[in-house]
Order: sequence, then C-alpha cells, then structure tokens
Amino acid sequence: MSHQKFKDCIDACSECAVECSHCESECLNEQDVKMLARCIKLDHDCAAICLFAMQAMASGSEFTEKICKLCAEICTACAEECEKHAHMEHCKNCAESCRKCAVECSNMSKLSTVK
Amino acid sequence: MSHQKFKDCIDACSECAVECSHCESECLNEQDVKMLARCIKLDHDCAAICLFAMQAMASGSEFTEKICKLCAEICTACAEECEKHAHMEHCKNCAESCRKCAVECSNMSKLSTVK
Amino acid sequence: MSHQKFKDCIDACSECAVECSHCESECLNEQDVKMLARCIKLDHDCAAICLFAMQAMASGSEFTEKICKLCAEICTACAEECEKHAHMEHCKNCAESCRKCAVECSNMSKLSTVK
Amino acid sequence: MSHQKFKDCIDACSECAVECSHCESECLNEQDVKMLARCIKLDHDCAAICLFAMQAMASGSEFTEKICKLCAEICTACAEECEKHAHMEHCKNCAESCRKCAVECSNMSKLSTVK
Repeated sequence: MSHQKFKDCIDACSECAVECSHCESECLNEQDVKMLARCIKLDHDCAAICLFAMQAMASGSEFTEKICKLCAEICTACAEECEKHAHMEHCKNCAESCRKCAVECSNMSKLSTVK
Repeated sequence: MSHQKFKDCIDACSECAVECSHCESECLNEQDVKMLARCIKLDHDCAAICLFAMQAMASGSEFTEKICKLCAEICTACAEECEKHAHMEHCKNCAESCRKCAVECSNMSKLSTVK
Repeated sequence: MSHQKFKDCIDACSECAVECSHCESECLNEQDVKMLARCIKLDHDCAAICLFAMQAMASGSEFTEKICKLCAEICTACAEECEKHAHMEHCKNCAESCRKCAVECSNMSKLSTVK
Repeated sequence: MSHQKFKDCIDACSECAVECSHCESECLNEQDVKMLARCIKLDHDCAAICLFAMQAMASGSEFTEKICKLCAEICTACAEECEKHAHMEHCKNCAESCRKCAVECSNMSKLSTVK
C-alpha cells in the first residue's frame, strides 16, 4: 500500500490546515474580533484534525476512515461559519479550502478498503 | 464553563498519551520488534488523539464529545493490542492507561451538555 | 532509561498545555478580545510546544534537550504576556503554569545526559 | 503579512511530514525493523516538528524563526539516518524531502523580518 492513493486528500488536508491557521491568526487582526470568536475556535479545531488526518493517511493508520469522517464534519462546520463572513478574504479562502477538504475526507471515510 | 469538569478525563488523556509515547519507544528497543509493529502504530495514533482530546476539553471545543468518542475507540484498540504482550512492563502499563482513558472518554462522549 | 526521570517536567508541560488552551479559549469570551490578541497567539504556540515536549520526553527523543529549550522560551514569553492581564483568572493561572513549566524545561534542556 | 511568503517552506514541511509518517510506517513493515529503530524515532520527531512549523508559518507566529531553526536540525538528522538505508524506496524519498525541507527551514530561520 502506498500513501499515493491518499494524495488528493492529504493535499486537501494540508491546504486546509494552512488556511485555517492563517484565518485564525488574521481574525485576531480584525476590528471586531468578538464576532469572530466561534470562527477562531473552529479554525483551531479544523487545523488540528487536518494535521492528524494527514498523518493517519500517510502512515496508513487503521483508523484513517474514522479520522477522515470526523475531519469532514469539523471542516463542514468551519466552512459554514467562515461563509458567514466571506467578505473577509481569509474567511473566504478558508471556507473554500474547508469545503474541498470536507469532500475529500468524506470520500475517504467511505472507502471500505482503507486500512 | 470551566475546564475543571473535564479534569479527570484530561488527566487520563495526558497519562495515556505519555504511556503510549513511552510504549512506542520501548517497543523499538525490544528484540522482536516485528511482532510489535501494530502495537507501535496504535501507540502512535493513541498518543495523537489523546493530545487532541486534551486540547478540545481544555478549550471547550464544540466537538469535544465526538473527539472523545473517537479517542475512546482508539484507546480500546490500543489496550487490546498491548494486552497481548502484557508480560512487557511498558505494554502492561500502557494497556492500563488506555483502558482508564477509554472509560473516561466514553463517559465524556455521552455528556449531552458538552459544548 | 525511563520516562520517570522526566515526570516532573512532563507533568508541568501537560498542565501548561491545558492552561494555555483554556486561557486561549477564555480570552475569546472576554469583552476586549482585541487587547488579548497576542496572548491568544502565544497561548496557541505554547500549548503546541508543550504537547510536543511531552511526547519527546515520554519517547526519549534525542532532541529532548533542544525541544525543551525552545519550550522554556515560548513558556516565558507567554507568561510575560499573561502577567500583563493577571486580573483575569485564566491569565493568572496560565502565567503561573507557564512560569513553572519554563523552569522545568529549562532544567531539562541543561541535562547533558538527555538522550 | 501573508502566509504566501512562507509558501515554499510550508509546502516543503507538508511534504516532509507526509514522507516521514510514511517512512515510519513502512519501516515497520521491513524484515529487519530493529536496524531501523533510530530511523523510526527520527521520522516521528521530524513529522511532528514539520507540522508544528507549518502552523507557525501559516499563523505568523513570532517564534517562526526559532521553530524553523529546530525543524532544520531535526530534518538534517533524519535525512542523515535515512540516507544510510537509501536502498529502501521510502527512506530514499524521505531523505530527499528532509534535505529539501532543511534548506527551506534554514533559510526561513535566518529571515530577520520573520515575526
């Protein structure tokens, strides 16, 4: 087994983790940070699960399916929140990366052959 | 809300992460490492999810329940594997920490009030 | 070698990671979040390096010394920032945990025998 | 400030983390795992610091410089170890990713403007 079959999903997770960490940081530079509190928290959780999913896929973890399922859920929640303030470039970019990653992780979580 | 209500579970996760990282490393010092390959991999996943769960509880993540549910599953798998070679001190200790953490995380995942 | 010799430092890192994650989250609930932006960022970095240091010590990493040195520096920066708003309970507790962890990690980083 | 200026280094860290996690896992499938014990441990540390550096750069951490400096050191150690068994495809690929990441992180750690 190779980690190549996970390539698209790993790439999506990597990009999503980066966009979430960036969005989290940029939110703290905005004028009305208070309004972005949930966004910041979800960015944090989303970056963390994406990095975890990357490692799971790269190492062929037997929990890859379940980790990717949870990753898809957190990505979706983060995308929904970021889309509420998509007039901010960082939230717009983050939402797009989260949506893409949610699709990839959702597909991955349904692979019955993932080991 | 305080992270104090999560105290027992956070402590169990912290101890479990440490025992798993230690077991992973000690397994690599054993004579027959090959036999311990799955143990090493599960130790790795288990340490990672425990550290993630710790952060989720400490920060009051809205995904705490789901993260703890997955943590309980991985802890249980790791405990079952370690119990197969409980004649090794590190596997015995690791299995005990995993079992304890699985119970705490399982209880946590059922809390309907976790937010 | 056992991870027992690292026990105090591992415990300090675990506690510090938890307090930092909690402080990061609580800062986002405060009225004037903007004023706490650097605190939130440092809490984030500090929690991450503490969890990394825990794993390094538990697994007897050959980079334990250097990881703990960096951990002590980040803990100190985080403590200094939190002390500026120690009237908030979470920042006060976080600063104390960071100071304690900085001492433990600093001692650890000087151990010539760490392997 | 944008995380775009970190793009090459973030990409190198992401690729290196993936190759290290993959190498760690593949080493455990080899016949003579014992010989690969140090490689497995360094793969582990290297993947962890690479993921940490990614987050630091993406969020514009004020410790980016120091985290990247440590990352370059761990990458170099991991590359040197993997090069000893470059007849194995996973170690060869991992060594290449580590060398590339070490260069990127080393350059990053010298940027006086990193904040």
